[in-house]
Amino acid sequence: MAGTVGVFVGVSVDGFLARPDGSLDFLPADGGDAKAYERFISGVDAVVMGRATFEVARGFDAWPHAGRPVVVLTTRPLDRTGWPAGAVEAMSGPPDRIVATLAGRGLTRLYVDGGRTVQAFLRAGLVDRLVITRVPVLIGQGIALFGNLPADVRLRHVDTRAYAGGLVTTEYAVVRAPL
Amino acid sequence: MAGTVGVFVGVSVDGFLARPDGSLDFLPADGGDAKAYERFISGVDAVVMGRATFEVARGFDAWPHAGRPVVVLTTRPLDRTGWPAGAVEAMSGPPDRIVATLAGRGLTRLYVDGGRTVQAFLRAGLVDRLVITRVPVLIGQGIALFGNLPADVRLRHVDTRAYAGGLVTTEYAVVRAPL
Repeated sequence: MAGTVGVFVGVSVDGFLARPDGSLDFLPADGGDAKAYERFISGVDAVVMGRATFEVARGFDAWPHAGRPVVVLTTRPLDRTGWPAGAVEAMSGPPDRIVATLAGRGLTRLYVDGGRTVQAFLRAGLVDRLVITRVPVLIGQGIALFGNLPADVRLRHVDTRAYAGGLVTTEYAVVRAPL
Repeated sequence: MAGTVGVFVGVSVDGFLARPDGSLDFLPADGGDAKAYERFISGVDAVVMGRATFEVARGFDAWPHAGRPVVVLTTRPLDRTGWPAGAVEAMSGPPDRIVATLAGRGLTRLYVDGGRTVQAFLRAGLVDRLVITRVPVLIGQGIALFGNLPADVRLRHVDTRAYAGGLVTTEYAVVRAPL
């Protein structure tokens, strides 16, 4: 069965992932849409994230990916002191090679996380599924959701749900352009 | 009863009102969310739009605001040859004065349209209601939904509906900051 590369992101209603300085203080403190996230993550074999996202996530009180292999895209060494074996691994290379390497291990359903990493996978045409949660606030400026693309990416609406706190989560499938 | 200033906009999933050159070719040709628009426009006394938006709208096959007074924000004269009396009027001045002038005529439920006009009303704290329709496509770059703001604008989720063609329309109420 073909694999699936998914993206799960929270953005302000005006479309920003983070404030200009990277701050996420406009996101709900409790994560908000726990049910939507659980539904998403339950179908994931491995997480692929950028180095910057990893450095933020490792500072959380609880590591959010316990029991799930995490690949950190980086060309610099990773200090894995104190991490369980196999929990975190450094990898580098273009998105298609990352996907192929992981597929070779049977890890075909991937969660891709982190602004630049998501953009690289999108531009490479490797993202199948986008789950976007809108946080009910306008912040005026910040880091854009996806950045430039070589061409329009058409989406198919799969599902939209409203959650407590005014969060609205929409799932889209990416429509692959005919070759 | 207090008036209401509403905004009804269509944006790409990555948050753009238009392509960098102003083109709207990614919006569905039939407008798409006709039901959402009808529900919105039925509660509107008058339309306030910028000059640029007016020049685009007057080129449409059918004038979209027949029977509803339209105020065009412009400091240049408006050629009203061929328009019914009272259909279109030029006005200029800051948003709060526009709102007060129209309220003096009993026009309190306003639809504010056009990128810069919407931004000016938002920055002035005069927008009560946002109805945003997400078109299922990523276009990568373009004109941002709202632009810079002097402070965060908190929103309250009112309603979200999915329509044919993958459109998702969400209505928000603007939460007024305490004075």
